Amino acid sequence: MPWSQPRMMLEPSRILSDDHLEAIHNKSLLVLEEIGMDILLPQAREILASAGARVTGERVRIGREIIEAALTTPPSEFTFYARNPARNIRIGGKWIAFGPVGGPPNCSDLDRGRRPGTLADNSNFLKLSQFFNCVHTSGDGSVDALDVPSPTRHLNIMRNKVHFSDKVPFVYATGRERLLDSLEITRLARGVSVEQMSREPSAYTVINTNSPLKLDNPMAMGIIEMARRGQICVVTPFTLLGAMAPITMAGALVEQNAEILACLALSQLAMPGAPFVYGSFTSNVDMRSGAPAFGTPEYMQACIIGGQLARRYGLPYRTSSTNAANGLDAQAAYETVFSLWGAIMGGGNLIVHAAGWMEGGLVASYEKFALDADLLQMVARFLQPVIVDDETMALDAILEVGPGGHFFGAQHTLARYATAFYQPLISDWRNSGQWTEAGSPLAPQRANALWKQALAEYQEPLLDAAISEEIDAFVDRRVAEGGQITD
Amino acid sequence: MPWSQPRMMLEPSRILSDDHLEAIHNKSLLVLEEIGMDILLPQAREILASAGARVTGERVRIGREIIEAALTTPPSEFTFYARNPARNIRIGGKWIAFGPVGGPPNCSDLDRGRRPGTLADNSNFLKLSQFFNCVHTSGDGSVDALDVPSPTRHLNIMRNKVHFSDKVPFVYATGRERLLDSLEITRLARGVSVEQMSREPSAYTVINTNSPLKLDNPMAMGIIEMARRGQICVVTPFTLLGAMAPITMAGALVEQNAEILACLALSQLAMPGAPFVYGSFTSNVDMRSGAPAFGTPEYMQACIIGGQLARRYGLPYRTSSTNAANGLDAQAAYETVFSLWGAIMGGGNLIVHAAGWMEGGLVASYEKFALDADLLQMVARFLQPVIVDDETMALDAILEVGPGGHFFGAQHTLARYATAFYQPLISDWRNSGQWTEAGSPLAPQRANALWKQALAEYQEPLLDAAISEEIDAFVDRRVAEGGQITD
Repeated sequence: MPWSQPRMMLEPSRILSDDHLEAIHNKSLLVLEEIGMDILLPQAREILASAGARVTGERVRIGREIIEAALTTPPSEFTFYARNPARNIRIGGKWIAFGPVGGPPNCSDLDRGRRPGTLADNSNFLKLSQFFNCVHTSGDGSVDALDVPSPTRHLNIMRNKVHFSDKVPFVYATGRERLLDSLEITRLARGVSVEQMSREPSAYTVINTNSPLKLDNPMAMGIIEMARRGQICVVTPFTLLGAMAPITMAGALVEQNAEILACLALSQLAMPGAPFVYGSFTSNVDMRSGAPAFGTPEYMQACIIGGQLARRYGLPYRTSSTNAANGLDAQAAYETVFSLWGAIMGGGNLIVHAAGWMEGGLVASYEKFALDADLLQMVARFLQPVIVDDETMALDAILEVGPGGHFFGAQHTLARYATAFYQPLISDWRNSGQWTEAGSPLAPQRANALWKQALAEYQEPLLDAAISEEIDAFVDRRVAEGGQITD
Repeated sequence: MPWSQPRMMLEPSRILSDDHLEAIHNKSLLVLEEIGMDILLPQAREILASAGARVTGERVRIGREIIEAALTTPPSEFTFYARNPARNIRIGGKWIAFGPVGGPPNCSDLDRGRRPGTLADNSNFLKLSQFFNCVHTSGDGSVDALDVPSPTRHLNIMRNKVHFSDKVPFVYATGRERLLDSLEITRLARGVSVEQMSREPSAYTVINTNSPLKLDNPMAMGIIEMARRGQICVVTPFTLLGAMAPITMAGALVEQNAEILACLALSQLAMPGAPFVYGSFTSNVDMRSGAPAFGTPEYMQACIIGGQLARRYGLPYRTSSTNAANGLDAQAAYETVFSLWGAIMGGGNLIVHAAGWMEGGLVASYEKFALDADLLQMVARFLQPVIVDDETMALDAILEVGPGGHFFGAQHTLARYATAFYQPLISDWRNSGQWTEAGSPLAPQRANALWKQALAEYQEPLLDAAISEEIDAFVDRRVAEGGQITD
């Protein structure tokens, strides 16, 4: 499918009444006022204290007037600038953007099995993200590159990211200097001034609070530095029901909402109007093992209510497409589509982990990436408007064919059949006989062929030679300096 | 999960504006007035002619005043009576009922492969439908019993159906006498008079018009006889885009809607107020082979717009959970969940083929049945309300655990953890190590174990001995008479 950004043509779903939504909101404010959050970074505590928050040791209690002020400044919709302007996207409103897998330490494919990720794998996932037009960002974290020493890893990954993709980038908030390195590479790749970049959101990071109610140093630095540079902060508490959050949905959402609002306050105090995205990742756990579960009924409910909260605040909304399957079987598929159902009907604007994510985030799968590309294309096609006019209502064709006939040979059909329907990448619609004769191939085999074809057909996007040299010089210097250990 | 009937707590989705919906409605009326339908049964033509329809040979042109009158009489919601009153269900409004697979000539399981269905297989699917509480009917057609001669097949199947299940039954409309046989067995099983049964819908049939715009004898008889006996008629045109209907969604829906409205007129003229369900099965085809495709973006759109039309008319709405996969792989799962997404968000009241259907309806799969039971339970759980009150918002638990703690040991968690979350039947949430050690089982193997367990644990529901004897006497007599060839 050609590059385009889907829009949510349906009304997002609502599970909670307005009254119940207000109850969650008010209880979140009470949590921030009476319990507060532990914020480890002194600078962050100072910023909040200067607005009137009460600080006792690491504990910061935030009054509702601070939250209410913070809610007035962030944009509800904005442009996210890519190094290739044709790949700019809109975040917020009815716009939907899909981001690929981010963060797993491992990767897998049918040929080489499950293994720790390398820089080569990381590059492959960047290329797959670039190749498929249904993916709108250059890669969340893709798979981690465990063969590169930690202090220089971000430099190598970012250099590859802007080489292999011209889509909008994710940057890791694993410490101030690393973050600034990544932003500098992003700026060089765009070829814009510091000042222009501060007006044009050009990178996003994800802040996972240390739920419950705690914010560590790299995360707090990420919020402050991204905001001060006008870059996009997506705050997504990792609120698993019964583990890091109350076991009841309403309680987990109170906690999620409180943590997001605290981070919003920090962001907007650091820079009023900084782009900020409300993220929901609330899900349940397997109560026998404590392992996270995804694509569950509870996950879907949380997705939808999270969207109600985001819209109540006029904030863009981030969700995910997830699953906890070990193999690329029916479970992987149904958990993923249930996730997408929740993510889309919840009104998600930025839907990440949407290609390649498996095992609850422990594995980036090559085959799952290919399969997900098909799913995302199907969702995009589903969201295209249905045209109703005399041409499409086709009275002439119905008259021409008449009762008991068929439309295969009708002029109305012949003029449209080549593009009328979505052509799937993975689905096999042959009849049983043909399918058996072909060796009864299942989805994983077809996905295996598809990602290989995608990598074979992948073309590196143009990057100005002078810019490429600048980036190389920057990365080489920083690597020579030893890179950066986390703050 | 215990027996219960889900309700649609979300607002059904809308794709078309009210104006576009009216355009489809008006164009459908125009089709019926100007093109008309070929109706093969003279009795049906006479009924329509007596209301003012213009009849020329087999062609019947139906004026809008006939349709408008017919739209005023059917109930928008009603009770569907089972032989066990505890299994009565509601059809219409916000109620959702799931029906299992219906009609495939073949069945399959992992042990015995793909093969023609037998009466023993038919019985097994009846037992699975009875066993799983998330399935609300005793079986659409289940799998066909190809080892029983056609004239007596319906008698054997219906006897088994009322023995093996106490849920509401489907009856086949494959001719007048066969239909009346099935209704008589249904009546005997309920132990009610003809008069009581005529007031209490106790069986449903599905009328697939011979699209485009044609109605054969058994189907027309089905509409008339079911209506006259106060039984439920579900009219579902088989309108595949580009094959039996225009290739454009709007055109296919005009045709679907026209066919349903014609059948509605016949039904309500035969018996004003007879229960009538609006069915949508519109989907696309593989344009290379003409094979039907299901769970596609086009299918989802048709599901949702079909629901808009049904609600415009105040009619209960029938949808399906479908797929065109050959194997129980990711494709089978994603096409099914996309179907369910369309069916549920479309506001489907009666969702059939929802357990066990594969290969576009050519196969009833034992493993798919077990897997679908899990999917239906997840949908039911997703649709349960989220309770928001002081208990569930859990401020005390958040205070007790505090920043940086965890909720595993909190009193609030311990009091709820056993029932807090949906426990899946199929999903395997073990970590990669444990899963690999267990032999890396995939969903089909788990589903295989589940259906065997279900059949092993299945218990035949009570049926009064006198009633059982009456049914045996009836069936034995009709079999001795040679059963019934189709009309």
